[in-house]
Amino acid sequence: NYFSHHCMHASFEAIVGTLADKFGEPYASFPFEMMVYGGGGVAGWGTLCGTLNGAAAAIQLLSHQPKTLISELYRWHEVTPMPNVSLKVTANKNDHFPSSSPVKPSVSNSVLCHIIMSKWAKDSGKDMSSAEKKQRCGQAAASVAKKTVELLNDEKAGMLTLAHQLSDETKVCSSCHTGSTSRLKNTQGKMECSTCHTDHTK
Amino acid sequence: NYFSHHCMHASFEAIVGTLADKFGEPYASFPFEMMVYGGGGVAGWGTLCGTLNGAAAAIQLLSHQPKTLISELYRWHEVTPMPNVSLKVTANKNDHFPSSSPVKPSVSNSVLCHIIMSKWAKDSGKDMSSAEKKQRCGQAAASVAKKTVELLNDEKAGMLTLAHQLSDETKVCSSCHTGSTSRLKNTQGKMECSTCHTDHTK
Repeated sequence: NYFSHHCMHASFEAIVGTLADKFGEPYASFPFEMMVYGGGGVAGWGTLCGTLNGAAAAIQLLSHQPKTLISELYRWHEVTPMPNVSLKVTANKNDHFPSSSPVKPSVSNSVLCHIIMSKWAKDSGKDMSSAEKKQRCGQAAASVAKKTVELLNDEKAGMLTLAHQLSDETKVCSSCHTGSTSRLKNTQGKMECSTCHTDHTK
Repeated sequence: NYFSHHCMHASFEAIVGTLADKFGEPYASFPFEMMVYGGGGVAGWGTLCGTLNGAAAAIQLLSHQPKTLISELYRWHEVTPMPNVSLKVTANKNDHFPSSSPVKPSVSNSVLCHIIMSKWAKDSGKDMSSAEKKQRCGQAAASVAKKTVELLNDEKAGMLTLAHQLSDETKVCSSCHTGSTSRLKNTQGKMECSTCHTDHTK
């Protein structure tokens, strides 16, 4: 799905499309094509990673505690070398996939497409037009879908473990800037602060 | 809808929910509750503004040129004082809405919740726990939904005007860093570069 419908569709369809295949309605009539919009961080804008946008939508449909699962997934994504699933993607004869060389994973400390891509390009030495880039993002969709299904299955089995807390540094920032009990309450968010902010006077 | 289901649901439902009210299927059976996930930049993470996430999903469902409309909407959002629609929100008796003072609009140069909120807090002097903040984001959902419907109607009437190009500075950055013909091709995205990057050696 990644190669035809981009990253958000790929992760969402891997989860909800599988349910549609197995159980039919109410999953089958979902307008899956809608999820194309999230490609490249929404229409190429580089905002939220499409695989994480699609996974969050699926979690909202399927979980009893969506905010908890989404936070666990997003923090996991920040600190995990991605992609961590290897796929032999079936190549369309008109495409140049799969790439001839393995994809090098990298830790992004981010959930934003623009940052994830910048860091991966730096770490891998590959550019946005490379076959490895497309292979990387296809495998990232698989990696995120797999983790999401594991979290949903763990929740269903009553075995959910929240293993990925915000960093200690982000918690310190949050104590002044975010959250209802913070001192300033002058922004919101849970993204790793240190990825972008390096200039704070401590 | 903002007060019960958050920002992404609010903009999406304002558009697609109105079609469901007027025309029934295929709009009426959409699982609108799914859109709750985008609240606060997805589960409070501060990534993509929920109003813009929901609007992009609606555009993908309803437009013949979704990428074009989404880019027009997103760039419009970056440069427009927001919110630009004033609402007298019906207050839930347990809430403190609407706010007693008018909401001060601000230009964010961003489509990311975390940045939009930080700039608005600075410009307005109000914090995240204020009644004005909730009023602001409810009105932002209305502002984005209105602009989205205008773009869709203009497209339908063959009168679409693309009035919001990327900034000259972002185009210069892009000539080296993004796009298939750029020199380095080492990232992707269309967000205004200068909002976050101030350290580039020219």
